[in-house]
Amino acid sequence: MGFAAVDVIRTKRDGRVLSDAQIDWVVDAYTAGDVADEQMSALAMAILLRGMTPAEIARWTAAMIASGERLDLSAVSRPTVDKHSTGGVGDKITLPLTPLVAACGAAVPQLSGRGLGHTGGTLDKLEAIPGWRASLTTEEFVTQLRDVGAVVCAAGDGLAPADRKLYALRDVTATVESIPLIASSIMSKKIAEGTGALVLDVKVGSGAFMKSAADARELARTMVDLGKAHDVATVALLTDMSTPLGRAVGNAVEVAEAVEVLAGGGPSDVVELTLALADEMVAAAGLAVDPSQVLKSGKAMDSWRAMIRAQGGDPQAPLPVARETETVRAERDGFVSTVDALSIGVAAWRLGSGRARKEDPVSASAGVVLHKKPGDPVRAGEPLFELRTDDASRIPAALAEAVGAVAVSEAAPGPRALVMERIA
Amino acid sequence: MGFAAVDVIRTKRDGRVLSDAQIDWVVDAYTAGDVADEQMSALAMAILLRGMTPAEIARWTAAMIASGERLDLSAVSRPTVDKHSTGGVGDKITLPLTPLVAACGAAVPQLSGRGLGHTGGTLDKLEAIPGWRASLTTEEFVTQLRDVGAVVCAAGDGLAPADRKLYALRDVTATVESIPLIASSIMSKKIAEGTGALVLDVKVGSGAFMKSAADARELARTMVDLGKAHDVATVALLTDMSTPLGRAVGNAVEVAEAVEVLAGGGPSDVVELTLALADEMVAAAGLAVDPSQVLKSGKAMDSWRAMIRAQGGDPQAPLPVARETETVRAERDGFVSTVDALSIGVAAWRLGSGRARKEDPVSASAGVVLHKKPGDPVRAGEPLFELRTDDASRIPAALAEAVGAVAVSEAAPGPRALVMERIA
Repeated sequence: MGFAAVDVIRTKRDGRVLSDAQIDWVVDAYTAGDVADEQMSALAMAILLRGMTPAEIARWTAAMIASGERLDLSAVSRPTVDKHSTGGVGDKITLPLTPLVAACGAAVPQLSGRGLGHTGGTLDKLEAIPGWRASLTTEEFVTQLRDVGAVVCAAGDGLAPADRKLYALRDVTATVESIPLIASSIMSKKIAEGTGALVLDVKVGSGAFMKSAADARELARTMVDLGKAHDVATVALLTDMSTPLGRAVGNAVEVAEAVEVLAGGGPSDVVELTLALADEMVAAAGLAVDPSQVLKSGKAMDSWRAMIRAQGGDPQAPLPVARETETVRAERDGFVSTVDALSIGVAAWRLGSGRARKEDPVSASAGVVLHKKPGDPVRAGEPLFELRTDDASRIPAALAEAVGAVAVSEAAPGPRALVMERIA
Repeated sequence: MGFAAVDVIRTKRDGRVLSDAQIDWVVDAYTAGDVADEQMSALAMAILLRGMTPAEIARWTAAMIASGERLDLSAVSRPTVDKHSTGGVGDKITLPLTPLVAACGAAVPQLSGRGLGHTGGTLDKLEAIPGWRASLTTEEFVTQLRDVGAVVCAAGDGLAPADRKLYALRDVTATVESIPLIASSIMSKKIAEGTGALVLDVKVGSGAFMKSAADARELARTMVDLGKAHDVATVALLTDMSTPLGRAVGNAVEVAEAVEVLAGGGPSDVVELTLALADEMVAAAGLAVDPSQVLKSGKAMDSWRAMIRAQGGDPQAPLPVARETETVRAERDGFVSTVDALSIGVAAWRLGSGRARKEDPVSASAGVVLHKKPGDPVRAGEPLFELRTDDASRIPAALAEAVGAVAVSEAAPGPRALVMERIA
């Protein structure tokens, strides 16, 4: 059945509820090109400002999934479980987590994205490894998932094409920041990828997309409900993103830090979050294994190497190192009270680790390395952080952004919970 | 200076005020094609839902005017004054009004539009006259204005091109119904046309765009202020559009009714509104003439004939007459209490007098002729109205729309003011 696009837009514009038939039609007609970009962007703005009911969000998500294929992972005998993070600064958790959960006995089908703006992309990070490639055919993806148990690769064009088209449109029309549209975008891709269970890492704080716990909670609740409605066992953790995760923010530097974690070391916050998410994933997969024991055993590192090799990468090859560094030192004694995630993320991006437009290349070696984290004691003259880049001309702008990110106070700050809340 | 379109959209989306520089840039860049349709439609939706301050509306209008040329009417020695109606059913007032005001000594530069939807377009009506053409060059326009004092023609592409582009976009994105966007669209064209004074006929009621007096008042106030800010003496009348104007709704039938008025007859409401608007226009032009005396003198009819001939039309030629008619009669004795403007307008449109899409042709002969108006006594079996068309297959749908439009009650309805309010 057909509708006029203007009638659908007008319904939402005037604050009314879209019917199932209107949603099915508009998503389908947009995918087919019968609803124009300028009509969909007006509708997206109306959705952003007027909101959607849970039933509308569910139907919208179902229509996005139906716009493409839903992968069949029945050839994989192990239980499948995936993780999605809403994106943060220094968020390399996918790198140690995927092989760790695979080593616990699950299969992890990680379809990831590239970074845009101040939060890095998992594929950009892994591409710092010589030889590693992000693109797999569906057959390669399923085979690797079956044989290695861990895959991180780019999503194919066949999954939720409506979302692919809509996401690009939202990016240029200031209609990204809508909880119904964010939730349906993430969940349509994850459900279409065919995973049996899903753990969501919803970030909160300056470096995150969601600045408030209330917004993050609403997004998490919406996504968990969408997952369950599509028979995907879904759990969400709200986690702190006011401070970068770990000490490394960039591409090669984050890979190195992930390898440290797999080797049994690494910053305590990265280890803590990796294990918290692994516990959820292993439980969601129905396995009775303790991920912390598996991490200690070295099996997660074996799984990492197998995963990197399966995609052409050399896990032993040296990672690129930046030619230029600039170190920022403390001006006084005290304790580091804050390290602002957003400022550090923007600084790393300015150094070349991220991109301004989809087409831009990223630098593998650029980034920020923190020498101190909140709570650490510091003496005047000690390094707080260093900026790394191959292009010295990028340093001043990055420095201007980063220099106010770290605050030193007389007293040590109180402790801050990394995992703030669990929503199931 | 440049902005990112997303930043401009985001500003309005979040309910903040656009800066002068943002407005100038976005209108200019949209006209040039540097801001895409999908970005402008998202912005238009944000403007519709968030509103604009008077200062934003003024700047937006100025930017639309600046996107094209502003006509120079200094070669015309008489004072220039124009009228704009927000559109109604049976609204042929421009036809007798333009030559009448010209006959009073002013020059009337009427740049008009075509109808879309249930309200007719002045150009469509005049095209029912054999030979008459709507398109003039700017030179022909100025010459006719100087020599005849009256022109009704299509606006050229050079006036407010930003508005032309934006209007077409709003039409397909459900972003028409925004008072800031309506006011700036109308006023940018009228100010660019170069008129020295302007009288606005803002319609209120079922057949009008503005259904409530409050909305109509806000629109009128916004437009009057915009006119004054650009040195165009502007006055608005709020007039009733719950009932069609006159007895004829269509193209040729409305021309015939306009000619009756110029000949000294015609329905009393059409005469009343023509004179009310003529009084305002003559006063705004600074002339000390009584339009009702000029109408009686026959000079307005002379001016009409000169105006039609100047554009190739034959004012004496017979007008097209529809082949098919269907008469609806009263079922009981009583008084006509209401004749709903919207239903009659839609019926005329269905008979072929209007168009569904910009490209559609219109029928000159189709329309509705009312035999009774509100307050008229009626006996069972007497004709209430007749439908006219060349295409009999259109009658059932038109009849279904029109049949409930006329209500007959036992008692005569109270009087209703045609001119409801004056805003200056």
